[in-house]
Amino acid sequence: MAFRNVDKGFQSSAGQDVNPDLDIERKTASFSVERLTNILDGGAENTQIRRKVNAVLQSDPEFSRENQYFQSQNERYEAAVRRSLYLSRKMDEMGWTTDGPEQKYCYRALGDDLAFTLHNVFMKSILGLGTDKQIAKWIPLAEKHYIAGTYAQTELGHGTYLRGLETMATFDVTTQEFILNTPKISAMKWWPGDMGRTGTHAMVLAQLNIKGKCYGIHPFIVQIRSLEDHSPAPGVTVGDIGPKMNFAQCDNGYLMLKNVRIPKKNMLARFSQVLSDGQYIRQGSEKINYLTMVMFRVSIIRTEVLTILMKACTIAIRYSVVRRQSELKPGDPETKILDYQTQQQKLLPQLATAYAFHFVCDYLQEVFDRGYAETKEGKFDLLPELHALAAGIKVIATDYSTASVEACRRACGGHGYSLLSGLPSLYTTVVASCTYEGENTVLLLQTARFLVKCLEMVKAGQALPSSVAYLSSTSSGKCRAQEKRDFLNPDVYTEAYKQRAFRMVENAAIKLQSLIQSGTPWYEAWNLGSVQLARAAMAHSHYIVVQHFVKTLEKFEKEFHIQRVLKHLCDLFALHGIFSNMGDFLQAGHLSGKQSDMVTESYLDLLAVIRQDAVPLVDAFDFSDANLNSAIGCYDGHAYERLFEWAKKSPTNNQDNQTFEKYLKPLFQNALSKL
Amino acid sequence: MAFRNVDKGFQSSAGQDVNPDLDIERKTASFSVERLTNILDGGAENTQIRRKVNAVLQSDPEFSRENQYFQSQNERYEAAVRRSLYLSRKMDEMGWTTDGPEQKYCYRALGDDLAFTLHNVFMKSILGLGTDKQIAKWIPLAEKHYIAGTYAQTELGHGTYLRGLETMATFDVTTQEFILNTPKISAMKWWPGDMGRTGTHAMVLAQLNIKGKCYGIHPFIVQIRSLEDHSPAPGVTVGDIGPKMNFAQCDNGYLMLKNVRIPKKNMLARFSQVLSDGQYIRQGSEKINYLTMVMFRVSIIRTEVLTILMKACTIAIRYSVVRRQSELKPGDPETKILDYQTQQQKLLPQLATAYAFHFVCDYLQEVFDRGYAETKEGKFDLLPELHALAAGIKVIATDYSTASVEACRRACGGHGYSLLSGLPSLYTTVVASCTYEGENTVLLLQTARFLVKCLEMVKAGQALPSSVAYLSSTSSGKCRAQEKRDFLNPDVYTEAYKQRAFRMVENAAIKLQSLIQSGTPWYEAWNLGSVQLARAAMAHSHYIVVQHFVKTLEKFEKEFHIQRVLKHLCDLFALHGIFSNMGDFLQAGHLSGKQSDMVTESYLDLLAVIRQDAVPLVDAFDFSDANLNSAIGCYDGHAYERLFEWAKKSPTNNQDNQTFEKYLKPLFQNALSKL
Repeated sequence: MAFRNVDKGFQSSAGQDVNPDLDIERKTASFSVERLTNILDGGAENTQIRRKVNAVLQSDPEFSRENQYFQSQNERYEAAVRRSLYLSRKMDEMGWTTDGPEQKYCYRALGDDLAFTLHNVFMKSILGLGTDKQIAKWIPLAEKHYIAGTYAQTELGHGTYLRGLETMATFDVTTQEFILNTPKISAMKWWPGDMGRTGTHAMVLAQLNIKGKCYGIHPFIVQIRSLEDHSPAPGVTVGDIGPKMNFAQCDNGYLMLKNVRIPKKNMLARFSQVLSDGQYIRQGSEKINYLTMVMFRVSIIRTEVLTILMKACTIAIRYSVVRRQSELKPGDPETKILDYQTQQQKLLPQLATAYAFHFVCDYLQEVFDRGYAETKEGKFDLLPELHALAAGIKVIATDYSTASVEACRRACGGHGYSLLSGLPSLYTTVVASCTYEGENTVLLLQTARFLVKCLEMVKAGQALPSSVAYLSSTSSGKCRAQEKRDFLNPDVYTEAYKQRAFRMVENAAIKLQSLIQSGTPWYEAWNLGSVQLARAAMAHSHYIVVQHFVKTLEKFEKEFHIQRVLKHLCDLFALHGIFSNMGDFLQAGHLSGKQSDMVTESYLDLLAVIRQDAVPLVDAFDFSDANLNSAIGCYDGHAYERLFEWAKKSPTNNQDNQTFEKYLKPLFQNALSKL
Repeated sequence: MAFRNVDKGFQSSAGQDVNPDLDIERKTASFSVERLTNILDGGAENTQIRRKVNAVLQSDPEFSRENQYFQSQNERYEAAVRRSLYLSRKMDEMGWTTDGPEQKYCYRALGDDLAFTLHNVFMKSILGLGTDKQIAKWIPLAEKHYIAGTYAQTELGHGTYLRGLETMATFDVTTQEFILNTPKISAMKWWPGDMGRTGTHAMVLAQLNIKGKCYGIHPFIVQIRSLEDHSPAPGVTVGDIGPKMNFAQCDNGYLMLKNVRIPKKNMLARFSQVLSDGQYIRQGSEKINYLTMVMFRVSIIRTEVLTILMKACTIAIRYSVVRRQSELKPGDPETKILDYQTQQQKLLPQLATAYAFHFVCDYLQEVFDRGYAETKEGKFDLLPELHALAAGIKVIATDYSTASVEACRRACGGHGYSLLSGLPSLYTTVVASCTYEGENTVLLLQTARFLVKCLEMVKAGQALPSSVAYLSSTSSGKCRAQEKRDFLNPDVYTEAYKQRAFRMVENAAIKLQSLIQSGTPWYEAWNLGSVQLARAAMAHSHYIVVQHFVKTLEKFEKEFHIQRVLKHLCDLFALHGIFSNMGDFLQAGHLSGKQSDMVTESYLDLLAVIRQDAVPLVDAFDFSDANLNSAIGCYDGHAYERLFEWAKKSPTNNQDNQTFEKYLKPLFQNALSKL
């Protein structure tokens, strides 16, 4: 019983002895995997750069992720700080700049093992909200990590609702200082990354108070720890908030301020300023910064959320052709679990989801680039639409991806529960995205607010922005599908999504209106309609995603095989969405009961089609084994061998078993004479 | 800023200074919380015993769960072994027997901190499958923990499908021994609890081979470690499988056997025996044991799954009346988040789910007690129905509870992501129940198989067992609801669930039939129908749960207030289920589009009604703060104070920060002259 040695730190994906069950899946690909990889990367050149970055990082033992699943919170944190600082030097050495193309690929390769995420936000806020003088002072220090920053917004008792923040910055005219205070426990800063054990300076968001008058939230640079010995600054209580579901590498912190004095010049003053006599001045427009924030929200979908979903699909689908379970045909060997329709139904819609959101990100990027150019020229008309669009897509992308990652994990049965599969940490990371950068329900209701306003604009005869233009059409035709294959026509299902979104937005608005007309105050009517409003915003966002997946297909008209496989994925995403939300489509009356059966049949047929390309479709994501860090999702398909090799390295197997000595041995002695 | 001292190890729920936001919720309860607690406990006497057990355990510092969230896998394991052995002594001391009422309450209080779960299964298998002589030899040793057992069934490459197990036990006539072997890596035993670091003996399930003929899976007692020094027995490779999403306290293990010889008497021989000459004899019926296993499946719903769901509801609902966020009415103070309809929609259906499954467990217990009595008398007719029923309810209970617990966790925003909230570990524990004791998809398809057979029986004119009798009725009337309040009539929604289940089972069977008639082999037709078959089995199980919640209400006809609040919960469970699966109800044609709007409105109205009793309804679960081990779900509602107190105890705040010394200090030096 010679077990293969699979115990190498990093593995290339080439020239390996591949498990035949996986190997055969690659031989029947209906399209060029390399070409699809290039498309996903936005061009062959990017693929090249990405692979080079990956190769450089993986050949450096400093970046080894071996044993990561065995590390304590403390060890993860130390490794993240060490690696981040090392990466800065490495990038310098390689000539990779922080705004160059390599940077994002470094993050893709090492993302969840790096520190200083909030340090970067600290810098961004200075660059966006600071004066030239403030930038000149702080940025060079922060860039070289001579100071470590954090961005302290969220409080123990206050999250999304910024106006509710309680931290107070009172201007003292006599000393020309701000005095910062945490008036009660709910006002403690809570959650900021890089604060718990690292930060020397915090960008503290606080209510500005001048002579008893409150001017709202402003950003203040506060030194929180000594640069010499790291002890808390006078009046500062600071620490780590302890263990979380994941993000062990990140030292999320708490911060309490008691009469902490900072010089006047530490308030970021590009857009608002306090003069020496306490006079308050607003200048310029922050809207361009606001847009930057919205764009950041979009960028995390790709970098934080989609990467994780793609990894989960890769692991689960590769494992599902290696894992065999039960007989399908009596007398045959046990069947690859991906050959079961129930397993296809668990995994393939998630694969389609990954592709759908990838392409909608491309679209958002285009829209935002346009919006940014306009905003820079002082035109702010696009802002409400862009905000609503980004919020809605952020919600659907994080919500669906979270559900998808967990579906992938659960589809791997017991082994998906082992950290060594890599899947649990993908889930516990991605699920946080539903809360950070805007809590999903709050964002959905912001999108809903915009949609309701659009309907009011339609009534008033005003034109609507392009992404919501369909709300001005009132046609409500029945679906014209006659047989199940009609549902493979993108016009048919796009129309269904449009009708569904339109009806749901309209119905929510009608309910709101009727409550108000019957005397309910606006705020109460809004609350009583909020479940339906949130669902309407989701249906709207769903429509946008389907619509742009369909548009993407047009780009590949000259590449038959690529277009065909993407069309299958687009169909699957759309039909799975109808299948899973059938009530919405039937309720609106657009689909009949009979048509809904056709959707189901068409959807189930598609599963078998895409199953044939499932492995090539995840290979196209082009993650190395080191990227995946999964014992069961590796390129060579030797899942069981790796599980065993990795398990042997667990500290639980390599520490003295004190439990035996202390508790068990004295008892077991008694059996010796009896056995 | 004096922070309250909330830093006691265990807290009683009485006489505390309660957060007024929580306190006021208790003053308006529409029913007697104590009475509902008694009902949930199955009588006031049980409540008394449970509270006594809880009090005894909580007053003993050995059982303190303080700092649990800070412990490593190693520490959790050691604590679990220590506590379990201590608990055995404590129970002796208190006069609590292992089959007495106190035992289950000990488990309720300490469940996830105990070891020896699989040791108990080891004993149960001997009691069920061993001869009197085997019982007399092994049970006394195991009871006193003179040996530590484990139950080794699952293999690295084989889970649910028992026939696929590859471990081999070959009978050697010359030495009268069995020779056990792991023929390849996929045959390694993988996952058994108490094996990784504890077990001295394993009940190994292996293919029995006599003179080259295979007799199927049989249980063998194999010594795997020395009783003296715990070293692996000759030919044995054994270890821990490493970190998992949870169950850190449990040493799940791996086991490889190479020509391990055991005496013939170590095969459990109550139902099958190997004679000295190699002759194989079967005797008696194992069916009573099979039923025991099915009953065990039912019992874990209550002990493992529902307890967790009830805890999650308690934490999330209490937190949601303490947490305030944003203005609802302009100018008012920030609003309790439970006053938002979207938050009610996240939490209250989960509360209703907990009650629904509690009562369906009562029903299952009754049915199984009857079935057990019959089976003991040699009547096995009930077995298929009982198996299908238990499988279906196991799936819906674990699946819904898992989704519910995560909904509760996510409804607590950022703080629900902190381990200190108690919620992450509830999720990562409960989700495992979808896989263990029968993988959910596999079980659902077993239930579906039974349902399809029932339809065939109907065609053949045979009578159906009671739980599926509705499949013989063919009425397909339209729903008679005229207005939204008609949907508060249990007859109306029970009928809707019945129709839905009937149509889905029937349609799945028709599809199967038509595939077979068109020449598709049976196994392929089954696979092509499996998504719909699984959904049909789920709809059937859903109907059973609703049906029995409604029946439960009848029991409380003389207790108006209790009946009313339970009726609200029953309505909510039923209407939320229709709202969330609207497609099924519309597709079958039982509900019209207009009626579906009524369901939505009726469901949303109910949220506001139950919101009034939400806190009393979770108080009725009667968990002590120590049971919950949550910084945000405590009885007194001082969530923020406790989060801060607990966070301060995190090891990340109480270890030297080597990271600063090693990596940060040298950099920070450079800023000293510049700031």
